[in-house]
Amino acid sequence: METSGIITLTTDFGCEDVYVAVMKGVILGIHPGAKLVDITHGIRPGDIRQGARILEEAARFFPPGTIHLAVVDPGVGGARRPLLVCAGSSFLVGPDNGLFWPLIKAVREATVIHLTSHAYFLPEISRTFHGRDIFAPVAGHLACGVDPLELGTLVQDPVRLALPTVKRSEDALEGEVIRVDRFGNLITNIHHQDIRSLGCLPEAKITVGDHTIEGIRETYSSVPRGGMLALLGGSGFLEIAVNQGRASALGGGNGTSEGVPVRVSRPHAGPGDGISG
Amino acid sequence: METSGIITLTTDFGCEDVYVAVMKGVILGIHPGAKLVDITHGIRPGDIRQGARILEEAARFFPPGTIHLAVVDPGVGGARRPLLVCAGSSFLVGPDNGLFWPLIKAVREATVIHLTSHAYFLPEISRTFHGRDIFAPVAGHLACGVDPLELGTLVQDPVRLALPTVKRSEDALEGEVIRVDRFGNLITNIHHQDIRSLGCLPEAKITVGDHTIEGIRETYSSVPRGGMLALLGGSGFLEIAVNQGRASALGGGNGTSEGVPVRVSRPHAGPGDGISG
Amino acid sequence: METSGIITLTTDFGCEDVYVAVMKGVILGIHPGAKLVDITHGIRPGDIRQGARILEEAARFFPPGTIHLAVVDPGVGGARRPLLVCAGSSFLVGPDNGLFWPLIKAVREATVIHLTSHAYFLPEISRTFHGRDIFAPVAGHLACGVDPLELGTLVQDPVRLALPTVKRSEDALEGEVIRVDRFGNLITNIHHQDIRSLGCLPEAKITVGDHTIEGIRETYSSVPRGGMLALLGGSGFLEIAVNQGRASALGGGNGTSEGVPVRVSRPHAGPGDGISG
Repeated sequence: METSGIITLTTDFGCEDVYVAVMKGVILGIHPGAKLVDITHGIRPGDIRQGARILEEAARFFPPGTIHLAVVDPGVGGARRPLLVCAGSSFLVGPDNGLFWPLIKAVREATVIHLTSHAYFLPEISRTFHGRDIFAPVAGHLACGVDPLELGTLVQDPVRLALPTVKRSEDALEGEVIRVDRFGNLITNIHHQDIRSLGCLPEAKITVGDHTIEGIRETYSSVPRGGMLALLGGSGFLEIAVNQGRASALGGGNGTSEGVPVRVSRPHAGPGDGISG
Repeated sequence: METSGIITLTTDFGCEDVYVAVMKGVILGIHPGAKLVDITHGIRPGDIRQGARILEEAARFFPPGTIHLAVVDPGVGGARRPLLVCAGSSFLVGPDNGLFWPLIKAVREATVIHLTSHAYFLPEISRTFHGRDIFAPVAGHLACGVDPLELGTLVQDPVRLALPTVKRSEDALEGEVIRVDRFGNLITNIHHQDIRSLGCLPEAKITVGDHTIEGIRETYSSVPRGGMLALLGGSGFLEIAVNQGRASALGGGNGTSEGVPVRVSRPHAGPGDGISG
Repeated sequence: METSGIITLTTDFGCEDVYVAVMKGVILGIHPGAKLVDITHGIRPGDIRQGARILEEAARFFPPGTIHLAVVDPGVGGARRPLLVCAGSSFLVGPDNGLFWPLIKAVREATVIHLTSHAYFLPEISRTFHGRDIFAPVAGHLACGVDPLELGTLVQDPVRLALPTVKRSEDALEGEVIRVDRFGNLITNIHHQDIRSLGCLPEAKITVGDHTIEGIRETYSSVPRGGMLALLGGSGFLEIAVNQGRASALGGGNGTSEGVPVRVSRPHAGPGDGISG
């Protein structure tokens, strides 16, 4: 597989510090023709799950041969391995802490390489900034055409990531809110295929916190301004939203946010119907 | 008109979510050579006026043939049309909700195309993310050289946008604060040409909220540190500022902000002099 | 020295306003092939020291011939000169207010040019936005290959910047916190070479505010979760951190932040041992 020359960056470094710029400088010093695209630098510090989800969702829209450089790395400088993963048509460069697990799991076979060839790192390796010293230079060399197998040794046991799963029964699905977006929409981990297989689309009853919503809509504007609704979001997952408002402002003092349980049931099912994981 | 290969992006998606990156991935999948430039993703959610103003101000500085992709789209999935506009030397791609109206109005004749050719969209069109499914792919194909007229059908009635206007009388102008920038400067909708035609530059008297300012200055540092002043900002509009401070912190509890009336009058004119719209 | 075609941007404009995009439009209008890289637009408004430090740290990682455009410019429109500096392998374009002083000081000889050739500016020069009217067009022309000496006249007296220094005695170093990063780490101005020359690495005793830390660690994870530690950060300076926590949250009501004194001493030295600047 050839690289496309596109290198994306996903970190928890924020955009106010110098760290992201330093990584870009290192890459361009190795491969001035690299095309750099920020995915986000707003991952919550150390939140591997959030990083993994965003990377998974973004990666499938980039052209084949794209290199995704991702640094959410609370264990930097410790025992965790630096990795290159070739998964499907994407290259992934970053720490071995589960960040790439959803993308690895999604393909039949991924090539996972423990980065050990110091010739492709910066000359001095700090214990606190492998994004600059290992991952950025490896991404740069990879974009230049270096063979992945020259960069390290094959391994078979990348770190896996446990993500909250959806529990299914005959009559209901139980998931949770996994993300609140800038519009205050609550993105859940319940996929439209799950709801479809329950056979209750679009009449499903949705319970989120103390709220109950009848039916799944197609657009935000299908309810009056300020009205709460459930719909299938652009990425295929159930979303709870308020038309021209913020669903995240509902609920208690701090509003409704990540981790809140969400239940989808057939219209005739009561809240006590048995769920078995 | 040929495209320049530059595609700008203006949205209310923020930089922490995955949405902007997904749009960039889609564009690069269609046209890997596209040159992507962010205008801003910090438009207030659903604020079409703010989006329209920022786009208008930015667009005139980009080279001819630039494609401006803009998604502030509270009506996504409803009846509003997806549009391509060729206005002057710019291409504009986004929803038909007034976002492009200032740029359309500024040229003698704009070509407005209702995007209807599904061949240039993603294969599946969601009801909630046309930025990804329609606007990004259309921008990518346009940058590749697809003829605008292949993308849809000509229409004559793009949605117009009502923006607050400046009222003029013989002795005064009445406008308002339309934006507060990061420095706390209050940007008004009163243009220096209006003030010039009033014939009172630089002696004008400016009233904003409870404050009165005498004269229009040329630089922030022409008053002492902490002093309030009025000056003509870089984009030609009257600004209220505090030298090395924040004009937005003046006034009541929440400070002075958008919508606050601003009055410019001849030095000898009293506050009660008649204004007629 | 030839330019690399890379132009970086460092400003205090934020990412929500139109100002950065306008500068990019101006550059691309002059040199459509320019490769634009944001360093940060999150410099605190008017904070020249913060801008100077971030620029200094970022610049050394970019390839030779990179143009660094930096606008932290509280004196815009006043008497301060617009500058181009050729320092080592970098070009620096921005206001003469000390922003480039650390990079000028770091090289044996820098060429400093007062930008006076209006032919390379925009036709109209505002008094409030030289980033757009002077610095962006000069960077664009420079990237196109214009000879630096055509852009203005040589000067010998760029404005210097006073930065807090580290005081040394036989037994101790006294510096301060100069930056708090997104992870809440406290970055100090005490360099590892200073500590090494004190001969107390890794056993040094560190005092920051009311806290005393014994020893300098190599990784965040070398102390238990929530534990406070000192370590040498990626850029070679002493950092105070909390493993998977925020050192900036320690101390009084607002936490520990910039300007707080930091003392490094030999393990046997008491807090009252004499320091001489």
